[in-house]
Amino acid sequence: MTHASRLSALRHSMGEHHLDAFIIPHDDEHLGEYIPAYAERLHWISGFTGSAGVAVVLADTAALFVDGRYTVQVRQQCDDRLFEYHHLVTEPYLDWLLSQLGANAKVGFDPKLHSQRWYQNALAKLAEQKVVLQPVADNLIDLHWHDRPQPQSHSAFLLSQDYSGQHSEAKRNRLAADLQAEQIDAQLLTQAEPINWLLNIRGRDIPCLPVVLSFALLHQDASVQLFADPAKFSELDLAAHSGHNVTLWPLEHLAGELVTLGKQGARVQLDPSTANAWCALTLSEAGAELVYADDPCMLPKACKNPVEVNGSRAAHLRDGIAMCRFFAWLDRRLTQPQPELEDEGSLADKLTQFRAEHPEFIEPSFSTISALGPNAAMCHYNHLNTTPRSLGQDGVYLVDSGGQYLDGTTDITRTLAVGQVDAEVSKLFTLVLRGHIDLAMARFPAGTGGLQLDALARMPLWQQGYNFDHGTGHGVGHYLSVHEGPQRISPKGSMVALTTGMIVSNEPGYYREGGFGIRCENLQVVTPAAVNGDIPVFEFETLTLVPFDHHLIATEWLEPKHIDWLNHYHNQVWEKISPHLKGEDLAWLEQATRPL
Amino acid sequence: MTHASRLSALRHSMGEHHLDAFIIPHDDEHLGEYIPAYAERLHWISGFTGSAGVAVVLADTAALFVDGRYTVQVRQQCDDRLFEYHHLVTEPYLDWLLSQLGANAKVGFDPKLHSQRWYQNALAKLAEQKVVLQPVADNLIDLHWHDRPQPQSHSAFLLSQDYSGQHSEAKRNRLAADLQAEQIDAQLLTQAEPINWLLNIRGRDIPCLPVVLSFALLHQDASVQLFADPAKFSELDLAAHSGHNVTLWPLEHLAGELVTLGKQGARVQLDPSTANAWCALTLSEAGAELVYADDPCMLPKACKNPVEVNGSRAAHLRDGIAMCRFFAWLDRRLTQPQPELEDEGSLADKLTQFRAEHPEFIEPSFSTISALGPNAAMCHYNHLNTTPRSLGQDGVYLVDSGGQYLDGTTDITRTLAVGQVDAEVSKLFTLVLRGHIDLAMARFPAGTGGLQLDALARMPLWQQGYNFDHGTGHGVGHYLSVHEGPQRISPKGSMVALTTGMIVSNEPGYYREGGFGIRCENLQVVTPAAVNGDIPVFEFETLTLVPFDHHLIATEWLEPKHIDWLNHYHNQVWEKISPHLKGEDLAWLEQATRPL
Repeated sequence: MTHASRLSALRHSMGEHHLDAFIIPHDDEHLGEYIPAYAERLHWISGFTGSAGVAVVLADTAALFVDGRYTVQVRQQCDDRLFEYHHLVTEPYLDWLLSQLGANAKVGFDPKLHSQRWYQNALAKLAEQKVVLQPVADNLIDLHWHDRPQPQSHSAFLLSQDYSGQHSEAKRNRLAADLQAEQIDAQLLTQAEPINWLLNIRGRDIPCLPVVLSFALLHQDASVQLFADPAKFSELDLAAHSGHNVTLWPLEHLAGELVTLGKQGARVQLDPSTANAWCALTLSEAGAELVYADDPCMLPKACKNPVEVNGSRAAHLRDGIAMCRFFAWLDRRLTQPQPELEDEGSLADKLTQFRAEHPEFIEPSFSTISALGPNAAMCHYNHLNTTPRSLGQDGVYLVDSGGQYLDGTTDITRTLAVGQVDAEVSKLFTLVLRGHIDLAMARFPAGTGGLQLDALARMPLWQQGYNFDHGTGHGVGHYLSVHEGPQRISPKGSMVALTTGMIVSNEPGYYREGGFGIRCENLQVVTPAAVNGDIPVFEFETLTLVPFDHHLIATEWLEPKHIDWLNHYHNQVWEKISPHLKGEDLAWLEQATRPL
Repeated sequence: MTHASRLSALRHSMGEHHLDAFIIPHDDEHLGEYIPAYAERLHWISGFTGSAGVAVVLADTAALFVDGRYTVQVRQQCDDRLFEYHHLVTEPYLDWLLSQLGANAKVGFDPKLHSQRWYQNALAKLAEQKVVLQPVADNLIDLHWHDRPQPQSHSAFLLSQDYSGQHSEAKRNRLAADLQAEQIDAQLLTQAEPINWLLNIRGRDIPCLPVVLSFALLHQDASVQLFADPAKFSELDLAAHSGHNVTLWPLEHLAGELVTLGKQGARVQLDPSTANAWCALTLSEAGAELVYADDPCMLPKACKNPVEVNGSRAAHLRDGIAMCRFFAWLDRRLTQPQPELEDEGSLADKLTQFRAEHPEFIEPSFSTISALGPNAAMCHYNHLNTTPRSLGQDGVYLVDSGGQYLDGTTDITRTLAVGQVDAEVSKLFTLVLRGHIDLAMARFPAGTGGLQLDALARMPLWQQGYNFDHGTGHGVGHYLSVHEGPQRISPKGSMVALTTGMIVSNEPGYYREGGFGIRCENLQVVTPAAVNGDIPVFEFETLTLVPFDHHLIATEWLEPKHIDWLNHYHNQVWEKISPHLKGEDLAWLEQATRPL
C-alpha cells in the first residue's frame, strides 16, 4: 500500500465514524520514550521514522508536526503532496486543527495513545470553539494495517536480588504504606520502567530498553495485579519469586479490573501525565474516584540502593575497558593505511564489538551517535538514516553511546581529535570540559534541585557568549531506561532534590552548525561528601572511566583546580582500567591518562 | 487601655457580630511590605511590633503567629496569659483555627486586609470542615481604637522626568496597549509602588518608602483614576503634569467606581496575590468579570531606563562617599580613648549623619541594621528593640543600610573587623566574599532567571559544608521600595528573566548563632556584556562603591580571578570616591583600596 492509499483508507473509516479529523501520535499505550514496532502507526501512515511527532488527518488535507530535530528528516521521508509540515512546538497541532475546523466538527483520537492530562486540556481547548473531541475505541489505523508486526513475546526474567538489592515485597510494602496513609485503594501503573522496577523483572520487548511492556495495579495491601502477555511468563513463575500476592493477568483483563474497581467506588491514584486517557475514562465512567499524583515509583527508582550503585560501578568499569580499547584501536587505525575506509557506521559497529566481548553486555542502551565533523553538530544524528561519513576529512569525532548490563546502564560521550584541529575548536572543547568539571566538583545541601546547578556547566561558555541548546543532565536507570526522571539538570529542569543514589549524566556541549560538535559526558552518582562544616552536603562520584582527549585541551582556558581535577580523574582511570589492558592498548592508556 | 481590655472589647464586638473568631493580620489594605502607623492593628491588639504576623482571637483563647525572625521578640512584647505563640510557617493559622472550631463556626475577617488569593484558598479550606468565613465591613479593631493615628497627609510631589526618564503618558500608553490586546477594560492597581511609578509621583506616607498610598484604575484608553486623599495634592496639579486623562478621586469613591465598572459588565484585571479581597468582591458582586494576572507595572518598573540607571550611579557615588567617611571615622574612633562609649545605636546614627550631609539625601531606605558580634547573627536585628551593644567586646561589626535619594535607592552591607578576629571568621568571611564575587562575575544569556544563578554565590560555602538561610538577591526600586520584584536571586526564587536595567542585590552571608554574622552586599545592574561569541549575554555592573575590609580576607581561600576582581573593584572605588575625600578620610581610603 502506498501512503496515498493508506490515507484514503483512513479517510474512508473517518467517514464511517463521522469524524472530520483523526489524530495519530507517535506514542503507544504506555506513553514511554520508546515504542515497539507494532505501535509505529505514525510511520505506517506517513513514512516518518523519528522518535516524536504527530500526524493530523482531515478529509481534504493532512499535516505532520515534528520538532526541530526532525525538520530536515520529515522532508526526506514524507510526501509533501500528502502532508503539510509544521513545527510541533511553535505551531501546536490543536491550534492548527481549530484553524481548519468549524463549530460542531468531530475530532477522533485513540484515548490509549494520549495522556489523561492531554485529554483534559485538549477537551477544554476544542470545546471553546465548540469542536468535539471523540474517543475512538478501535484505532482506525489498525483496521487497515494488515502486515502489522506482532508484539514481541520474549520471555520475561527475574532480576536477581544480587543486582536489584531489594526484594519486590519491600518495595511494594513501602509504596502501599503511602497509599494507606493517603487513603488510596489502588495505584494504577502504566509505564514499563516503574512496573519492571517494582517487580524486579526485565524483558526484551523494546530494543535498548530491557522491559516487559505491561500495566499494573498496586493495591493498598501491597498486592499487585500485573497485566501482560502470559506467554512471556512461561519460564518465570512470578508468584514463586515475588510472593503469592503478585498475580499475572492477561492484558485483555485490564478493562474489566478497572471497571470492578470503579464499581466499588475505589479511590484510584494515577499520574495524569503518563497514564493514558483510556484508563482514566474507564475508571471514572465505572464510578472510581481518580486521584492525580506523580507516579510513586519514580523517586525510589531514581534513588539507587548501595547494591545498584555498586553494580553501576562494575558496569562502568567494563564499559570503560571497552571504550578505551576502542579509542586505542581508533588511534592506531588513524595511522594505518586508508583510514578513509572507516566510516561512522563501521566505527559504531567496532565500538559495539568491543562492548560485546564482555559476556555481561546485553545490548546498547540507545542507538550509538557516531558523528564526524559537521554531523556532530546535530545532537540526535543517526548514521543509519543517511550515508555515513568517512574518516579523513574532519578534525573531530563525537561518539555518544552506552550499554545495558545486568548490573547497570551506561551512557558516555567523548569528543576526539581525528585530524587537524584549530585553536577555536580547542578553546570551545576546553570551555565545555571546564563546565563539565565545574559541575562534577559541585557540592550542595539537601533540597538542591538540578535547575540550581545547571548554570555551573554553562558558565564557562556563557562567559564567552556561547551556549548549548539541550539539558545538562538526565537521570539514568539501573539496567533500565538510559533516560529517567524525576531529577534533571537543565535550565527548564526540575526542582526535584538531588539525593543519595541518584545517577545523572553531566553532558555540556557546543554545536557549530555545518562545522563541528563537542560534548563531554560522564555519569555521576550523588553521594554524601565528607566535610566539617555546619550541615551535611552531597557531592558527585564520577562513574565513567574513560580519558578526555588531551589533544583538544587548551590549558590556558583552565584554572589550576580544573587541571587538578583532570589529573586526579585520569589517574583514577589509569588505576582502574590499566589492569585490564595490555600491549598497545595499555600503552595508549598510559599516554591518554598522563598528567597535564 | 491594657491589652487585656482591648481583647475584651474585641470579643464583645465579635459577640455582637456572632463571630467565633476574628483574624488580625499585620497588613494594611495595600498589602505592601511597609504599613503606616494607622494600620498597626496587630500592634494595638497584641503589643507585637514585628513586620509580619497574625493574631487570631476566639471567645476564650487567642494566638499569635510569627515567623522565625520574631520568635524571641514576640515573647518579650506580648503577654503569654493573653496569647499562645505559634510559628507562622510551620503551624498555619487556618489549621490551628480549624483545630479550635466546630462545624458552622463563623470566622470574621476584614477583606481589605487579605489578598484575593488568600480569601479564595481560606474559603475553600474552611468550607471543607463547614466553617464559615465571614467578611466584616468595619474592622472590629477600629471600633475600639480611639487614639488611632491619623493617616499622614504630606504633600505628594512629581518626580521630574530628569529622574524618571519617561513620562507617565508613555508608561500608561504601553500598558493600555496590552489591555487592549487582551480585551481588558480596566486594570485595578492596589499597591503604592506601581501606582507611584506609573504616574511619576512620590510622597511621604510611610517612613523609608517615598510613596503616596493610593489605589488606581488604568483604563484601556490609557486614562487613570487615582484614588487618594485630595489633601495630599493641594500643591501638585496632577492633570497639568500627567495629562487631563489622569483624574484624582477621593478614596471614598473607590467602591462606587468599582461598582460602576461591575454594572457595565467590564473585564477588570487584577493581581490576586496583591489586590485585597474587598476590591475583588466589590467588583464581582457588581457584575464585573475578573481576570487574574500579575500586576503589569512590576516588570517595566523593574527594568530601569538609562536615566534611572544613571541616577542610581549618582546616588551610589554619594552613598559610597558617606559610607567611606563613616568607616574612616570608625577606624579612627577605634584607636581613640573609650571606644566602648560607642554602641550600635550611636554608630547607626553617625552613619545617617554622614548620609544626611548630602543635600540630595531624603531618608534611610530601611531601618539600619547595626549589629556587633552575636547580634549580627540575627539577620533582621534592630538595635532599637533592645539595649544596643557597645564597641570593644567583639571581633566583627555588620552594618546593613541604605538611602533614599531623588535619583535612586541604595542598599549596602559591609562586615568590618572591629577587634580580634580568628582564622575561622576570616575563612568564613572570605568564602562569603568569594561567593559574592562569583555571582558578580557571572554572564548569562537572555531568559536566565535568578534561581539559576543563586548557587554561584553559595558554592564556596557549600563546598565546606556551610550555607545561609536567606535569598542571595532582591530587586531594588528607583527612589521607591528597597525590595521589589518580580526578579529575585534565591533558591526559592523566581524564573523571571534577568534583563537590562534590573537592579538586584548580591548579598550572601554566614551566621553563627550566638557568635557572629557576616554579609557582603553590593547592588548591581544588569547590562549587556561585550563578547564575541554566538549569542548576546548579560553581565552585572556593580553600583555600590565601598571597599571590603582587607582585615577579614584570608587570601588562601581565593583564586587568582577573585583577587583580580577585588583589586579591580577597589581601584574603581578609589578612582571614583577619592576626589571627594580629603585628609584622614582620603588616607583611610588609600589603604582600604590598596591591591591585595
